[in-house]
Amino acid sequence: MQTELSKKLGVEHAVFGFTPFPAVAAAISRAGGFGVLGAVRYTAPDDLKRDLDWLHAHTDGKPYGLDVVMPAKKVEGVTEADVEAMIPAGHREFVEATLAEHGVPELPEGEASGWRITGWMEQVARSQLDVAFDYPIKLLANALGSPPADVIERAHAHDILVAALAGSARHARKHADAGIDIVVAQGYEAGGHTGEIASMVLTPDAVEAVAPLPVLAAGGIGSGEQIAAALALGAQGVWTGSIWLTTTEAELHSRKLTEKLLAATSSDTVRSRALTGKPARQLRTEWTDAWDDPAGPGPLPMPLQGLLVAEAVSRIQKYEVDALLGTPVGQIVGRMNAERSVRGVFDELTRGFERAIDRVNRMAGR
Amino acid sequence: MQTELSKKLGVEHAVFGFTPFPAVAAAISRAGGFGVLGAVRYTAPDDLKRDLDWLHAHTDGKPYGLDVVMPAKKVEGVTEADVEAMIPAGHREFVEATLAEHGVPELPEGEASGWRITGWMEQVARSQLDVAFDYPIKLLANALGSPPADVIERAHAHDILVAALAGSARHARKHADAGIDIVVAQGYEAGGHTGEIASMVLTPDAVEAVAPLPVLAAGGIGSGEQIAAALALGAQGVWTGSIWLTTTEAELHSRKLTEKLLAATSSDTVRSRALTGKPARQLRTEWTDAWDDPAGPGPLPMPLQGLLVAEAVSRIQKYEVDALLGTPVGQIVGRMNAERSVRGVFDELTRGFERAIDRVNRMAGR
Repeated sequence: MQTELSKKLGVEHAVFGFTPFPAVAAAISRAGGFGVLGAVRYTAPDDLKRDLDWLHAHTDGKPYGLDVVMPAKKVEGVTEADVEAMIPAGHREFVEATLAEHGVPELPEGEASGWRITGWMEQVARSQLDVAFDYPIKLLANALGSPPADVIERAHAHDILVAALAGSARHARKHADAGIDIVVAQGYEAGGHTGEIASMVLTPDAVEAVAPLPVLAAGGIGSGEQIAAALALGAQGVWTGSIWLTTTEAELHSRKLTEKLLAATSSDTVRSRALTGKPARQLRTEWTDAWDDPAGPGPLPMPLQGLLVAEAVSRIQKYEVDALLGTPVGQIVGRMNAERSVRGVFDELTRGFERAIDRVNRMAGR
Repeated sequence: MQTELSKKLGVEHAVFGFTPFPAVAAAISRAGGFGVLGAVRYTAPDDLKRDLDWLHAHTDGKPYGLDVVMPAKKVEGVTEADVEAMIPAGHREFVEATLAEHGVPELPEGEASGWRITGWMEQVARSQLDVAFDYPIKLLANALGSPPADVIERAHAHDILVAALAGSARHARKHADAGIDIVVAQGYEAGGHTGEIASMVLTPDAVEAVAPLPVLAAGGIGSGEQIAAALALGAQGVWTGSIWLTTTEAELHSRKLTEKLLAATSSDTVRSRALTGKPARQLRTEWTDAWDDPAGPGPLPMPLQGLLVAEAVSRIQKYEVDALLGTPVGQIVGRMNAERSVRGVFDELTRGFERAIDRVNRMAGR
């Protein structure tokens, strides 16, 4: 799967793999794809440095990238405490009542909640970049709008391509105007933050909107047939994420969650504001149901919701509370039915791609 | 675009075109596709007979089909009046208040509402079939579940293939078990009744679920690139609908509606229960907003909602009330930007298909 973009980046296959796990990112790059490490969970620069050291040492010299979550709009002088103070008491009570209903224990004394708002704040993302620019990363992706102009400039000065996620043609054009190099068209079926437009329509919309900039198709891609479809739609490659969650290299820290992912069908996800305040696709659970219930208080806007539920999510994960346990994942979860190595998944992608090309050529009478 | 299914049906291209307009269906079949006439609006058998006569005379001997809306569950002895009586007074008041707010006039004395519940009732669908079986139709599609067993048998006795729309793999398997011949996998992005799963994921899900039965991909298909994508995903052809609405042969009866469709982007549709009580994708308007507003009474279940709004829809259409004027249409509406003949659209589909095959072959190094 060779495109102009994969050639430019020096990878064998135009398959980009986003993952929070360095071992998965390294294995994707080694397999001939392009591994992209998600930085959002690194609130301490030293942790990111440690994992980038490891990643760099394990890619066999193959290229890799970093994904940050950097809001385009700068909010000056707002601390986490200021944001905390904006959360209504009724919402905090709803969180506690929902956890109590399912018998979710408190965290042990002194154990901090793992995932915090901090990873979403610009100063944290900037400290991540200060670390990342010391490594030969080839791609910097931003999951939340275009990165600020100075960040794009700094990346370009390091010969790093800048990518940004878009959910509509209008959104994609905004990124192009901001000077980014690659648009990741994130379809409705994708895990994590998504818009309303499905990949079959969004991919060609984005391609037309930003040509000649390259577009990567994201959302619903978990097989070689789907890669062939994305390339037929005009994409220069695919951006995958969900399918790596159930690889043997992934470290989900919850066996029960892995089993839920392996058992889920494509009908078992929901696009909900429960996690961050913005619509994000994830496993449907009694937790998302509680937030989506019109009888409840409903989610708060970003960034309040993420801050509100951070500790609750840690508690649900730590105690593996089945009815509430979820994770961002796309509709492709229905095809994630067996744990396999990254290499195993990758080989199946390339085989399926060849099968699909054979089939369409037959149908085209070639 | 030749597949086993297109060969079986004797058409040049595996492109199925659903349309309520006989002139469009005939032109699709003449262009080398497979025209499918939607029967739901024919409440009088003689009207259907007249249009099937015309269609048969204008397809140059090429095959065509019929699409009915036949509920799988039989409701015995229920009249339209019984159903009318189940509608709460508050909902009727909401309809009138919303129309009054936009200054929508009443229908003239004696003018009946055009679209009624009757087309959705089994006895009406059966009377349509009594007419249709006198014509050499090659395909009978049902938009609402599997048709009853005796209808499938009767179709097969006439050498007619039976198709049914499905929104999930489970749904597709149910159809296969009922003995139908073709599954139309209707993705989230499709116009009309749809499920939650987008075409990129649903098409291969359905293919795997019912193999070796053929699957047609529906939802988001309006270009040859999208046809190539659907075939790469394992479909034996595509089922299109929206793209024919803005052809010169279509008779929408409202210039303003045609202009709204031509101007709409892929962000301008909504999956709403406003029209029939079941989620159906359509142009987003102040009418759908009113029904989707949590502050309002919300839509009634099928078939009550369709009956409740039938006259209102006729009034909105007759007086072309801009803010409320809509129609079922898929996300592909964003690419319907110019009125063209059916032949013009078809030629562009085949050209785009060849371009896409060229591109994926290049990317596959072939």
